[in-house]
Amino acid sequence: MTVKALGALAANKPMESLEITRRAVGAHDVAIKIAFCGVCHSDLHMVRDEWGGAIYPSVPGHEIVGHVTAVGDHVSKFKVGDTVGVGCMVDSCRECASCHDGLEQYCTGGMTQTYNSPTADAPGHTLGGYSQSIVVDENFVLRVTHDEKDLAAVAPLLCAGITTWSPLRHWNAGPGKKVGIVGIGGLGHMGVKLAAALGAHTVAFTTSESKREAALALGAHEVIVSKNEEEMAAHAGSFDFILNTVAATHNLDPFIGLLARDGTMCLVGAPEHPHPSPTVFNLIFGRRSIAGSLIGGIAETQEMLDFCGEHGITSDIEMIAANQIEDAFARMLKGDVRYRFVIDSATLAG
Amino acid sequence: MTVKALGALAANKPMESLEITRRAVGAHDVAIKIAFCGVCHSDLHMVRDEWGGAIYPSVPGHEIVGHVTAVGDHVSKFKVGDTVGVGCMVDSCRECASCHDGLEQYCTGGMTQTYNSPTADAPGHTLGGYSQSIVVDENFVLRVTHDEKDLAAVAPLLCAGITTWSPLRHWNAGPGKKVGIVGIGGLGHMGVKLAAALGAHTVAFTTSESKREAALALGAHEVIVSKNEEEMAAHAGSFDFILNTVAATHNLDPFIGLLARDGTMCLVGAPEHPHPSPTVFNLIFGRRSIAGSLIGGIAETQEMLDFCGEHGITSDIEMIAANQIEDAFARMLKGDVRYRFVIDSATLAG
Repeated sequence: MTVKALGALAANKPMESLEITRRAVGAHDVAIKIAFCGVCHSDLHMVRDEWGGAIYPSVPGHEIVGHVTAVGDHVSKFKVGDTVGVGCMVDSCRECASCHDGLEQYCTGGMTQTYNSPTADAPGHTLGGYSQSIVVDENFVLRVTHDEKDLAAVAPLLCAGITTWSPLRHWNAGPGKKVGIVGIGGLGHMGVKLAAALGAHTVAFTTSESKREAALALGAHEVIVSKNEEEMAAHAGSFDFILNTVAATHNLDPFIGLLARDGTMCLVGAPEHPHPSPTVFNLIFGRRSIAGSLIGGIAETQEMLDFCGEHGITSDIEMIAANQIEDAFARMLKGDVRYRFVIDSATLAG
Repeated sequence: MTVKALGALAANKPMESLEITRRAVGAHDVAIKIAFCGVCHSDLHMVRDEWGGAIYPSVPGHEIVGHVTAVGDHVSKFKVGDTVGVGCMVDSCRECASCHDGLEQYCTGGMTQTYNSPTADAPGHTLGGYSQSIVVDENFVLRVTHDEKDLAAVAPLLCAGITTWSPLRHWNAGPGKKVGIVGIGGLGHMGVKLAAALGAHTVAFTTSESKREAALALGAHEVIVSKNEEEMAAHAGSFDFILNTVAATHNLDPFIGLLARDGTMCLVGAPEHPHPSPTVFNLIFGRRSIAGSLIGGIAETQEMLDFCGEHGITSDIEMIAANQIEDAFARMLKGDVRYRFVIDSATLAG
C-alpha cells in the first residue's frame, strides 16, 4: 500500500512530502491509520544524520497514535476501530533475557526501532510515524484508553512519557520520596507530571527564573533555579532520585551533591560533547550513583498509558500541520515550544 | 597516658618516633594495646597533606588490631584480654539517619575518623594506629575471632577488607553473580578473596600479564588483562557488578561496556585528577550505573570480620618494623607490595 509521508532524502535536504509503501497486513499485524505523531528531538537528529548512521529516505516519528483499520488472522489483542499507539520500537529478538523480562529496549540483538532500523519491508529500513499509516506486529502496539478528544496530546507519551516513566518507576518514585526533574522540556515536563502523579514530592530544576510558574503549573511541588547556588545548597543531600533530561553538556556535580545517601541521578539525554567528568568523591561520600535509562519496555509502556488514561495525564502540545515541520524543528532547537509539537496527520494528504 | 607513636610533624618532614598521649579510659571506653597496624594509601596521603586539611603532628593508621587492656565501668561488649580491631572511625553523631541505619561512615554530622578528625582529646585531633595503644568508645571497637597467629594479617581487613566487603554485599555479590574486581592491590586482593568466598563468579582485572597467576592464586575464577581488547570484548555485557579499586586516573568506559543490563560499577578509589568523562550512551544502553562507596558501617565491619574468621580469610601481608615506614611508603607508591604492609607495633618501643 502506498501512503503519503513526510521525510528527508538526504541529511542536507529539507523535509518534504514523500510516497512510501507499507507492507501487507500479516497474520500477526495491525494496520493503523495514524491520527497524530509527536515531534521528538531524535527525529531531527536522525533526518540530519547528526548521530551518524541515518538511512535515506528518512521518515522519522515514534510518538504515534491512531486507529486500527485492519488486523491479521492471528491478532488477538486488537480489532478494527481500536485506538492505539506505537512508540520507539516495532520489534525485537523476543528471545534474549531482556526481551523475556519485558525490557525489549535493551534487547541484546538490538530492537527494531520505529525508524531507521533494518527490516524486510521496502525500502529495507523502517519508516516512522510522519506518515498516514503504519503496519506493526500486535506485540508492539499499545492500547490507548484516554478520551478521544485528548488523542493528539497522548502521542508524546509514547516516547517522552515512557522515557521518564520507566526510570521513575525503576527507582521507585512515589510517596515519601523526594524526586527532582532536571530540564523542563519535552521529556522533563512529562517527568514532572508523572512523578507528581506517582505521589513523589516533585522538585523541578530549571536554569531560568522565567520558567518557575510554568513548572509549578505542571504539578511540581517546588522549583529550584539551578543557577542559584543558595537555593541549591538548601537542598544538599536530600533527593532520593533525580531524573536528568538535559542532553546539553553540563556539570553534573551540583546535582549529585543534592542526592541523599544511596540516591541516584539517572540521565536520559546523551550529550553531543561529554559532560565534565563527575567528581568521584561525590559518589563515594554517600554511596551515590549516576545511571542511564533508555525509553521503556512494551509492558511498562502499556502500564504508563493505562496510568495516564486513568489520571487524565497527557502532554502539553502545540499542533502543527505537516508543512510546518521545518519551522517546528527550528523552534524546538531554540527550546521555543511548550512542550511538544504534534503533527496532525490529516495534513499529510494536502 | 603517654605512648610511643610514629608520625610526621609537617607535610615535608619524614615519619619519626613521637610521644603522644591517650585519654583516660572513660565509662564507655576500651583501652587497646595495639599489636599490628596496616599501612594504607590514605596514611601516606594524609601525612604528606596531599588531600589538604592535614593537621600536625599527624599519626596515621586505621587498620588496627590488638588486645583490650582496660575497659570503662559501663562497657558491656568487651573485657580485658579480648582480641579486637579498630578501623577508620572512632565515633559519629549517632543520631542521624545513617547512624541509625548502622552506616556511620555516611554520618551527616561527619564521622570522627581514626586520625585527623577533631576531638576533645589532646592535641585536639585524633591520632591513629601507628602507636602503642589507643582508647576507643566500645561502639567503635570490633571483635576479632581469627586465630591469634593470624592477627597481623587481620589488620588490613579493618580498611581494605571492609571497603571491598561493603559494596560487594550492598550490590549482592554471591552465587549466580558475575563480579569483576579492577586493580589487584591492597583493596583489590581483598575484593577477589571476599567476592570468591561470597560465592560470586569472580573475575580479576589487571593491567599486567605478570599478575595473572597471582590473581588466580587469590581465588579469582578468571583473570582479564584489561589492556587486551580481545579479552575484554569476549566479556561484553556480562558482569552484574564491577568493583573498581583503582585510584589512578583511567578510562572507565571499557569496564562499563562489560556490565550487563542493570549492572553497576562501584568506585572505591578517588583519583587525584578526574577520570576521562564516562560516555553517557554506555549508561543509557543497558540502564547501567556508576556508583561510589566509602568503607563500611560498624555492624557490617563486624559481619565481615566474623565471616573472615569463619572462612579463615586474611590479607596477604609483608611485616615491617616502625623504622621501615618511609621505605614501605616508597614501595607502596610503586605498587611493590603483595599486598599490604603491616607494622609490628612492638617495634615502636625501640
